[in-house]
Amino acid sequence: MTLEILSIGNELLSGHTINSNAAVIGQALLPHGFPVDKVTLLPDEKALLKKGIEEAMERASFVIATGGLGPTGDDLTRDIIAEIFNTSLVRDETVAADLIERFGKNLPTLDDQAMVPKGATVIPNPLGTAPGFILEGKATVFVLPGVPAQMEVMLPTVIAHLEKHHTKSHYVAPLYLCLLSEQQVDPYLRTLEKEHPDITMGICPSYGVLSVYVQGKDPQKIAAIRDLVAEKFKTHVFSIESKQIEKALHQWLVKSKKTLAAAESCTGGELATRLTKHPGSSDYFLGSIVSYSNHLKETALGVSEKTLQAHGAVSEEVVLEMVAGAKKLSGADFAMATSGIAGPDGGTANKPVGTVWTAISTPDKTFSGLIPLKGSIRTRPLIIRYTVTYLLASLYRYLVYNVEPYA
Amino acid sequence: MTLEILSIGNELLSGHTINSNAAVIGQALLPHGFPVDKVTLLPDEKALLKKGIEEAMERASFVIATGGLGPTGDDLTRDIIAEIFNTSLVRDETVAADLIERFGKNLPTLDDQAMVPKGATVIPNPLGTAPGFILEGKATVFVLPGVPAQMEVMLPTVIAHLEKHHTKSHYVAPLYLCLLSEQQVDPYLRTLEKEHPDITMGICPSYGVLSVYVQGKDPQKIAAIRDLVAEKFKTHVFSIESKQIEKALHQWLVKSKKTLAAAESCTGGELATRLTKHPGSSDYFLGSIVSYSNHLKETALGVSEKTLQAHGAVSEEVVLEMVAGAKKLSGADFAMATSGIAGPDGGTANKPVGTVWTAISTPDKTFSGLIPLKGSIRTRPLIIRYTVTYLLASLYRYLVYNVEPYA
Repeated sequence: MTLEILSIGNELLSGHTINSNAAVIGQALLPHGFPVDKVTLLPDEKALLKKGIEEAMERASFVIATGGLGPTGDDLTRDIIAEIFNTSLVRDETVAADLIERFGKNLPTLDDQAMVPKGATVIPNPLGTAPGFILEGKATVFVLPGVPAQMEVMLPTVIAHLEKHHTKSHYVAPLYLCLLSEQQVDPYLRTLEKEHPDITMGICPSYGVLSVYVQGKDPQKIAAIRDLVAEKFKTHVFSIESKQIEKALHQWLVKSKKTLAAAESCTGGELATRLTKHPGSSDYFLGSIVSYSNHLKETALGVSEKTLQAHGAVSEEVVLEMVAGAKKLSGADFAMATSGIAGPDGGTANKPVGTVWTAISTPDKTFSGLIPLKGSIRTRPLIIRYTVTYLLASLYRYLVYNVEPYA
Repeated sequence: MTLEILSIGNELLSGHTINSNAAVIGQALLPHGFPVDKVTLLPDEKALLKKGIEEAMERASFVIATGGLGPTGDDLTRDIIAEIFNTSLVRDETVAADLIERFGKNLPTLDDQAMVPKGATVIPNPLGTAPGFILEGKATVFVLPGVPAQMEVMLPTVIAHLEKHHTKSHYVAPLYLCLLSEQQVDPYLRTLEKEHPDITMGICPSYGVLSVYVQGKDPQKIAAIRDLVAEKFKTHVFSIESKQIEKALHQWLVKSKKTLAAAESCTGGELATRLTKHPGSSDYFLGSIVSYSNHLKETALGVSEKTLQAHGAVSEEVVLEMVAGAKKLSGADFAMATSGIAGPDGGTANKPVGTVWTAISTPDKTFSGLIPLKGSIRTRPLIIRYTVTYLLASLYRYLVYNVEPYA
């Protein structure tokens, strides 16, 4: 089978919206053995859109299209799909009844949003007004709304349809490693590839996290090869499910009934945000004092004015007082602190942009050190992101593999 | 002219990496009058990659390809492009000298990364090891690395080349509105479109922010039409440059020399993160007390145990004490507070998921209210995101248009 994704919308081509839908779909399909062969972004423009859909239907047996189903004038997908399938739009009374139940009789877009191509199987949209649908012809075409939350909740219907009508042929076993470079891992993967011509290895670095994908037709074989890679880089392994190191740490802390707090300066709340993004984080995460100003470092965290004056906010002495303050205020078992120069301004000869002092405190010991920034990690967002990843990964490696932070 | 983007990499099709590069390129090119006609994601697989590049070169006069330039075994772009242009890879001594200067003589990938297709114009990569290049044939092909930070810093060379070799034909005037629904704005845009057949209007909702794009061939005309839209929805306008409401608020606060602080519970640091993402935010942002636990609400913010017990953490009484605590600790002119149930768990009959109490405090008055969540804003990330946008937009509208929050 071949499967293509069409992401429809001018806002995607203009870059005003990042195309997260294609990634979400790709990631959801892969574990089911349905790899995506191609993704195409198409504009809300009749001729180009029609041509793009027809081309995809020529090449692929399954096409998943998202976007352009709304009630506004620039939404064309439904009409064009109906035209391609040589059918017309008809009012679906089940959809209409559902819309009335959820949005009331006076929903101004009711008459428009209840229309679907004749012969289509409707995929209900429990969150929004635009229903999705399936049409089968030269290719099977799944059409879903472009609003990410709506698309995501409707995706299981697409997967169920694929599962029912097709057998898997391609498997992927992911492995996620932290604090290793691509160059440290890749040679070993190429050796494995030579020894096992029926598997292929993918590698993808992402600022402190390395994703390795073992791919092949035999699920047992790829799992065995993944075990070899995991054994080789053991103290860096944190998941076979998610590349988010915060999830692995979350699971360990919840399971161990331990708590964590933070005091952040240059990371500006990103540490707290990454942890609290996940449901259930309140089971272990107590909070973070984002003390951006020096005054707040004193009033909220109890950092002494003397230390700030003697060493500056970006110093080992200050992060040690910050981490102690976070622990004292929160009563947490573990705490972290950051203070650095994320740039682009604020750097000096002694403390250039990228100087980030951090501390990790455990029940019996407190570690501190500079974040070792390398390669292209020189811009503000990357310095912040890598600092957070480094701290979370360092605490994870300490807890699980007894590897000392900053070693 | 037609212009296509090719985003290359298995990790994009598998969804393990979201394709932000195409969005960044699209957004960078549009103000220069170069709209993107199509974006295609291609795998690191020889036959499919070659076919995809050749097809794009058939259709478009300009092709911008990113990804697949690294030193590892699955990076194929350079070889395939050389093959398509019927040329070979040669060592570029300028590139080699630059790599040695930045990474030292022992860079293991030196011999690989210094190779570029014969006849190509090199685009230097100041951050990483893989140089970009330009090749001119049936189409002009720009090849850039897939690492976002590297790609971005090299993009101006591509734009300069396009500017030099082509005249603009298409202009876009964006307008960004907050706290309005698509349905409130779209009918007026369609009226304008009918009155002015030489312009087209685009609209894109995004959880509290509405982006409107006026497009056409005459830059003065589209600017005039944008003025009409801005006048019509005046107290909701916050920018013609960026859809990030935090940037507009940032500019107002810095210009007015006022400061802001926060106390966050359910938003978990997202408010602080969105503000501190922007360089120079320390000029007005003092910090945020992310008090996820009730204990930290007491110890750090001075919320009384009595209030917490009587009303629960998710209550108007608690956010009022939180916002007062944030102001007192930080000395800020303005402060915000959030406490709610972001879900998916933790909801009750009286306080279901999506119940979010918030407060906005100004030098002379404090406002408080529930966040009015609508439509598809029912999941944890969207509840958090919309809450932050709502608060920032409400404070902006109060400061600039004197519109009372929660009115």
